[in-house]
Amino acid sequence: MYADDKLREECGVFGIYAPNHQVATMTFFALYALQHRGQEATGIVTCDGRIAHVHKGMGLVSQVFNEENLSHLRGHLGIGHTRYSTTGSAKLRNAQPYILETLNGPLAVCHNGNLINSPQLRRELLERGVGLQSSTDSEVIIHLLAGAGGDWLTRIRIFMAKAEGAYTLGILTRDAVYGVRDPWGLRPLVLGKLPDDGYVIASESCAFSTIGAETVREIQPGEIVRIDADGYEIVQGAPPQNKAFCTFEQIYFARPDTVFNGQLVHQVRQELGRQLAREAPVAAEAVVAVPDSGTPHAIGYAQESDIPYTEGLIKSRYIGRTFIQPTDQLRKVGVAMKFNPLPENLKGKRIVLVDDSIVRGNTSGPLLQLLRKAGAAEVHVRVACPPIKFPCFMGVDMASQDELIAAHKSLEEIRAHIGADSLAYLSIQGMMSALAATSGYCNACFTGEYPFMTPITTIELQEKEKFAEMWGD
Amino acid sequence: MYADDKLREECGVFGIYAPNHQVATMTFFALYALQHRGQEATGIVTCDGRIAHVHKGMGLVSQVFNEENLSHLRGHLGIGHTRYSTTGSAKLRNAQPYILETLNGPLAVCHNGNLINSPQLRRELLERGVGLQSSTDSEVIIHLLAGAGGDWLTRIRIFMAKAEGAYTLGILTRDAVYGVRDPWGLRPLVLGKLPDDGYVIASESCAFSTIGAETVREIQPGEIVRIDADGYEIVQGAPPQNKAFCTFEQIYFARPDTVFNGQLVHQVRQELGRQLAREAPVAAEAVVAVPDSGTPHAIGYAQESDIPYTEGLIKSRYIGRTFIQPTDQLRKVGVAMKFNPLPENLKGKRIVLVDDSIVRGNTSGPLLQLLRKAGAAEVHVRVACPPIKFPCFMGVDMASQDELIAAHKSLEEIRAHIGADSLAYLSIQGMMSALAATSGYCNACFTGEYPFMTPITTIELQEKEKFAEMWGD
Amino acid sequence: MYADDKLREECGVFGIYAPNHQVATMTFFALYALQHRGQEATGIVTCDGRIAHVHKGMGLVSQVFNEENLSHLRGHLGIGHTRYSTTGSAKLRNAQPYILETLNGPLAVCHNGNLINSPQLRRELLERGVGLQSSTDSEVIIHLLAGAGGDWLTRIRIFMAKAEGAYTLGILTRDAVYGVRDPWGLRPLVLGKLPDDGYVIASESCAFSTIGAETVREIQPGEIVRIDADGYEIVQGAPPQNKAFCTFEQIYFARPDTVFNGQLVHQVRQELGRQLAREAPVAAEAVVAVPDSGTPHAIGYAQESDIPYTEGLIKSRYIGRTFIQPTDQLRKVGVAMKFNPLPENLKGKRIVLVDDSIVRGNTSGPLLQLLRKAGAAEVHVRVACPPIKFPCFMGVDMASQDELIAAHKSLEEIRAHIGADSLAYLSIQGMMSALAATSGYCNACFTGEYPFMTPITTIELQEKEKFAEMWGD
Amino acid sequence: MYADDKLREECGVFGIYAPNHQVATMTFFALYALQHRGQEATGIVTCDGRIAHVHKGMGLVSQVFNEENLSHLRGHLGIGHTRYSTTGSAKLRNAQPYILETLNGPLAVCHNGNLINSPQLRRELLERGVGLQSSTDSEVIIHLLAGAGGDWLTRIRIFMAKAEGAYTLGILTRDAVYGVRDPWGLRPLVLGKLPDDGYVIASESCAFSTIGAETVREIQPGEIVRIDADGYEIVQGAPPQNKAFCTFEQIYFARPDTVFNGQLVHQVRQELGRQLAREAPVAAEAVVAVPDSGTPHAIGYAQESDIPYTEGLIKSRYIGRTFIQPTDQLRKVGVAMKFNPLPENLKGKRIVLVDDSIVRGNTSGPLLQLLRKAGAAEVHVRVACPPIKFPCFMGVDMASQDELIAAHKSLEEIRAHIGADSLAYLSIQGMMSALAATSGYCNACFTGEYPFMTPITTIELQEKEKFAEMWGD
Repeated sequence: MYADDKLREECGVFGIYAPNHQVATMTFFALYALQHRGQEATGIVTCDGRIAHVHKGMGLVSQVFNEENLSHLRGHLGIGHTRYSTTGSAKLRNAQPYILETLNGPLAVCHNGNLINSPQLRRELLERGVGLQSSTDSEVIIHLLAGAGGDWLTRIRIFMAKAEGAYTLGILTRDAVYGVRDPWGLRPLVLGKLPDDGYVIASESCAFSTIGAETVREIQPGEIVRIDADGYEIVQGAPPQNKAFCTFEQIYFARPDTVFNGQLVHQVRQELGRQLAREAPVAAEAVVAVPDSGTPHAIGYAQESDIPYTEGLIKSRYIGRTFIQPTDQLRKVGVAMKFNPLPENLKGKRIVLVDDSIVRGNTSGPLLQLLRKAGAAEVHVRVACPPIKFPCFMGVDMASQDELIAAHKSLEEIRAHIGADSLAYLSIQGMMSALAATSGYCNACFTGEYPFMTPITTIELQEKEKFAEMWGD
Repeated sequence: MYADDKLREECGVFGIYAPNHQVATMTFFALYALQHRGQEATGIVTCDGRIAHVHKGMGLVSQVFNEENLSHLRGHLGIGHTRYSTTGSAKLRNAQPYILETLNGPLAVCHNGNLINSPQLRRELLERGVGLQSSTDSEVIIHLLAGAGGDWLTRIRIFMAKAEGAYTLGILTRDAVYGVRDPWGLRPLVLGKLPDDGYVIASESCAFSTIGAETVREIQPGEIVRIDADGYEIVQGAPPQNKAFCTFEQIYFARPDTVFNGQLVHQVRQELGRQLAREAPVAAEAVVAVPDSGTPHAIGYAQESDIPYTEGLIKSRYIGRTFIQPTDQLRKVGVAMKFNPLPENLKGKRIVLVDDSIVRGNTSGPLLQLLRKAGAAEVHVRVACPPIKFPCFMGVDMASQDELIAAHKSLEEIRAHIGADSLAYLSIQGMMSALAATSGYCNACFTGEYPFMTPITTIELQEKEKFAEMWGD
Repeated sequence: MYADDKLREECGVFGIYAPNHQVATMTFFALYALQHRGQEATGIVTCDGRIAHVHKGMGLVSQVFNEENLSHLRGHLGIGHTRYSTTGSAKLRNAQPYILETLNGPLAVCHNGNLINSPQLRRELLERGVGLQSSTDSEVIIHLLAGAGGDWLTRIRIFMAKAEGAYTLGILTRDAVYGVRDPWGLRPLVLGKLPDDGYVIASESCAFSTIGAETVREIQPGEIVRIDADGYEIVQGAPPQNKAFCTFEQIYFARPDTVFNGQLVHQVRQELGRQLAREAPVAAEAVVAVPDSGTPHAIGYAQESDIPYTEGLIKSRYIGRTFIQPTDQLRKVGVAMKFNPLPENLKGKRIVLVDDSIVRGNTSGPLLQLLRKAGAAEVHVRVACPPIKFPCFMGVDMASQDELIAAHKSLEEIRAHIGADSLAYLSIQGMMSALAATSGYCNACFTGEYPFMTPITTIELQEKEKFAEMWGD
Repeated sequence: MYADDKLREECGVFGIYAPNHQVATMTFFALYALQHRGQEATGIVTCDGRIAHVHKGMGLVSQVFNEENLSHLRGHLGIGHTRYSTTGSAKLRNAQPYILETLNGPLAVCHNGNLINSPQLRRELLERGVGLQSSTDSEVIIHLLAGAGGDWLTRIRIFMAKAEGAYTLGILTRDAVYGVRDPWGLRPLVLGKLPDDGYVIASESCAFSTIGAETVREIQPGEIVRIDADGYEIVQGAPPQNKAFCTFEQIYFARPDTVFNGQLVHQVRQELGRQLAREAPVAAEAVVAVPDSGTPHAIGYAQESDIPYTEGLIKSRYIGRTFIQPTDQLRKVGVAMKFNPLPENLKGKRIVLVDDSIVRGNTSGPLLQLLRKAGAAEVHVRVACPPIKFPCFMGVDMASQDELIAAHKSLEEIRAHIGADSLAYLSIQGMMSALAATSGYCNACFTGEYPFMTPITTIELQEKEKFAEMWGD
């Protein structure tokens, strides 16, 4: 009941090479800005050119780090990570970055994404006699890098030649930080420059604003960026594939102040809302968002439809997750513990309720009841993306296909299920036009067309789950 | 740098008598909804008619309570409290409710407000030989109640006859819960009814929506409400004084979904924004709020001015307070760690930036720089309340008068200080008309006219501070 | 199974006035030496002549204090406390010293003992309207002192005139530390002098060796010692009663390096063993102790009997209490988890097993089985005190009378129960002669003759328990 | 000042295969009995034949485990470990057992000892591209086992063929537990049988008494024991070398109730004391031990010399380590914080003070001062082993050679340094005769004759330290 009906992103990645900055503190603030990409665990590894220092912990960035532990993270280069919060097996063992000693000095890796061929890669390692300590892809990646021959760039290329799936990597060696983006460009990665000197990489440019860096450019699919004492260098690590940037980064995952492809995410979301208003207009007195993620889309819908935007639902500002089960009486009250309505803004009005997406469809019903109880005359639901019908294997934790409401119900059935007066989703064409693109995005969760040649078989997925089970993950 | 430039409310109060409900769980969810009134500490006391049970802790409601400790809080009546988070001396000793054994069974008290004559009341207790263990008013109140003669109603009346200042109390005895509102009505208190049976009291009605209760009515100045096995009874505890409800509850403190005097706070804030638009119009292309608290005012300004509302600043959703000091380089970046701008929404535009209030004026300057750096052509600041020039002694922790920017600078000086193209505050008359009132509010922080006859002398305040120092508070 | 079959002392008390020492650190080390008198909780209060500072916590002295929290305990006078560890309700609320603000500055109190008329004293406070927050005697004492008139010495005398029972107090005011011993002298208290300057008081002189102090003299029954800027002063606070020093301090509670009445406790215990050897000789090849507390008695027995002393049982040096329940298979193994036998020292020998005392008799049986399994030919149990038949109401937590094995079984029955070849207790006369005394001791647990005129009725005890229940204690 | 002047053992190892027992609880109690072999960290891995379960933590066994986490450690086989407490880098990362996933299922390893060729073995792994995450030998061992070919027995043999140094291993695979003892037999390992069924291995037989197991036999140098569904099997894993069992296991490390080579350790220690009495008699009135470790030796000395044994020093029963620095005044008091003298047992007497060993010689001086201040007429120090002159590279953490007092001072110089009236060490011949042996022991710390052919060069040791530094260990 407390979980949002949202998809879940897996991680945030950051890297920095900046001899004249306090690298650990800079990384801390950057991770603070990337907190929305993962609240389960966080970690920072720094290096002073010889020795690596690490601190990791479960919880929010602000909970895990303090002046004292940051002070031990000496050095002029570093990488950091925020990890997404699952309900179940939060284990420190799975916190990143991973770090290893190698013949060539310390090696640390952090990862955003999901390798679809990780069962094969695990097997390769196990067959080489490399035991594994977790069920994470990141451990697989660091051992593949440690065990490959050649310099670090060569090793990264060897890894990219083998790996299939979504991966944005931050890699730290003794004297450089590397950023890697998979050949499909499924997850974002961007390069920035610090005012005085030094370079940074991050999953999202919003981290740059926070630490005073300027965006240099996005790392393109298949590229490797290396930042070190000589500045930065970008090389092609693997041939780019048909670009398949995750559409949901635009729709929901990224912070609205991040820029992708030169477009501010907040603007993209407004445009999705405007397009939705064009496709699915309705006579109404107020446009209301499902806060906070649906707000930009709702503002766009209001702009285009000329129906006034207002707030209709209040969401608690204090997220601290609770696992207290509501009583039976409270259960009837439903979603109210998370959202409260603003009756005077709704009373007697026809309302357009704009949401960025619907996954399971389990919170929309109670929300609509709230609005009606607060006096709304009609509630027209508008969803700023197409129906989600297929599971993601590329680093997004979402319901299994069974749970996806649009996989099993028609539009009319969904409308009836949630109790809306009308319901419309944005079309795929409309979404793409709002993105000002005709291609370059992974829309697999809407279309079932995955970007990989390898068929993702159930057997392989089961093998991966078996590993996870062994570790109690 | 991380603190908002906001006033700080001191507490949230809740009480419940409900034999057929899980009282502790209900209180938990109500406190969760009152979290915005205090994040330092929280506590619940319940009673089963014979024995009282208590659990208190430092931190958020969701951090302090869990299924296990709630299960020990047995009984059919209870009170709970959220305490405001100061930066310094967070001590468990100061967490509320306080609880005492008396000849008439357990007594528990929680408090929102500030007694201006607490030095005299402390002295009265000390002279009676009652030692005190903290510097809080709440401990004074509970000992005054414990030491007075007569039944509980009589004791509360004796207390009210002596006390001067702001106090909303939740009181638990063996068989009843009492709510008390001071004769000036400085802090809010409202009575609600549960669907099946039982009654509740809360600082704000937003707690009722969360637990499925309906508002019965607001408790009026000087009234005592008693809820017990026979339902509720409201009596006059002390003659009401000229009503002096804190205007800032309407402007900033309360949750937007709370109702005061039959008005939804969100609507009141929109009306403040609309009035501001009438008083201080300006030619612009976008109305932008200082989120989240300025959003309703900005929406109102946009409605009245017909300038489109949009989001121009993003605030981190993950509050976890951090005490990490920014580096010197980061210090230059200023407020950016908390707010990031949305350049595409601002670029080349004349912006109206609506804030609910300005206290010290120390965050507005950096914010404006952010907006300009993001491309805003002009920034016109509009503040939805009058200039704050006088300190509060009634339970709001705000800067000393020295720090209040409007106490020392003219409008033009403030404008120059924050770097705005223009600056306007709402007038007192305009504010009152937006509140649809001509009296009944305490506007002391704007006018310096305090609601009490007793002059508040520096000497008494120093005495209070001396006590606090003794306890290291 | 893990609990020793021992009586339990309630507390250790310490006080210091020493302008040229680091008072908090000295108190820390003194409490470290008094750790055996209580492992549940500990606390220190210091005062700099104006403001008091306090730190308390659950656990061992070494766990609760660190350099950081000691550094906040500024001042030149202080008191400290170690509290005995019950299995159940370990609550920080009950940790001592208690501290209050009074008209005459801070007041702090810590206590070793038990007031038998505390129900009446509680009632007196409650009738005066002083609410109470715990079920401890110490809170009653501090409120009685705070509420009495006159200077501190007068107030302490007023308290002593009212109080009945065992109490050794450490009291801190703004400018002096007081030590108080009840008129029966039930619990010990001793005055010491620091090498450079300053005086200290402690429950046992072993604390003095640890901090380099020399014993001045023991505080006598009914005396008050005041230590302040002028040195020390001893006055009679209440007429001394028939001295009734707890015999068990000599037998078991005190550390062997403590001196009572000019006698080293270790010597007294050896003498108890020697007397036991005279009273109950037996032909045997080895004298073995139940370690560690029975060792001095066993050494004495060996000296007198000329039977060689050796170790026959090893006790884990690592006490960390465990609450893990043994498995059924382990349950059969019984006491072995705490003691392991030394077979080669026992094999084929007739063993005298010397214990300082037997309370419930539940560990002796398994211990004897261990010894026999390890090869002992005969086991003759010798107990260095008389049979314990009556409960203690003066600050010792022991089994209820039902559980005292000697209250219900004859000597022969006990022998059979524990499976000894022979069993002998020390006689009361023998014990007194070993103590070199004919009177001056409370032997109530052996004789049932309590030192108080007031009959201790069940009703009053029940009242006290009722209070405890209210607090969940 | 708080550290004992003792050598430090590195670890305790335990393993169990017992389908009808609660394996985790049994392991818990066994580790509780092996606590003296390591107090820094502890861990348990169990396996249910398919999946492995692990829990590790910093601190004592009783602190790390509770009913809840033990309940997750399902399965019928398991291994456990206690790790020695260094002052500095206590890191959870270094806690054992280590666990890896391999193609052949889970693999877990725990280790007691020290590989002298671990730099070479580390390099072998790194050259194979296996990155390492710690500076521990145990991680090296588990990766060597994981990466070798063949069945587990084969892999263990491959490892034994490569490894040089001290190693007692506990190894868990999917369906068996292995115990391994290095070919020199430097560290102990013993096999036991549970009453109902199942087998156990442990570093010391004292763990067996605690869980009701009987010793089957000691594992001999170079042997591997495998325990599984078919019972146990012992095979030779590597040719035994000249046996070199660490003499200090007999003198100090092991619990007195452990049996080595059929001899109870307590008896051996008594015999060491008796031999010492024969070699270095002295006229005296009392024999006193440095408690607790010197007690058996002192009892033996007393038996042989016919001088009465008594206690002369009391050691705090409550070990909780403290890092509080004593004040300057306290510093003068010296060792008194740990030991207090018993003056009446010492006054006017000539004392033989028996210690099991002297390492740095830094605590003996203060101890002797204590005894003299308490009235001892003469103090004759007798040390129950020969002078320690050479460092250990086989798993004992002792001072560097610089710090070993006997490496630099003559007997007379040491006597003068510690202020004894006379001083004698046991001779090597005397020690061996007390051990009833002419060979089979490593006496390298006395003689400098190390059991390995490989010269232990400073360069290799430095390389090892470099690794440790990289990990901040």
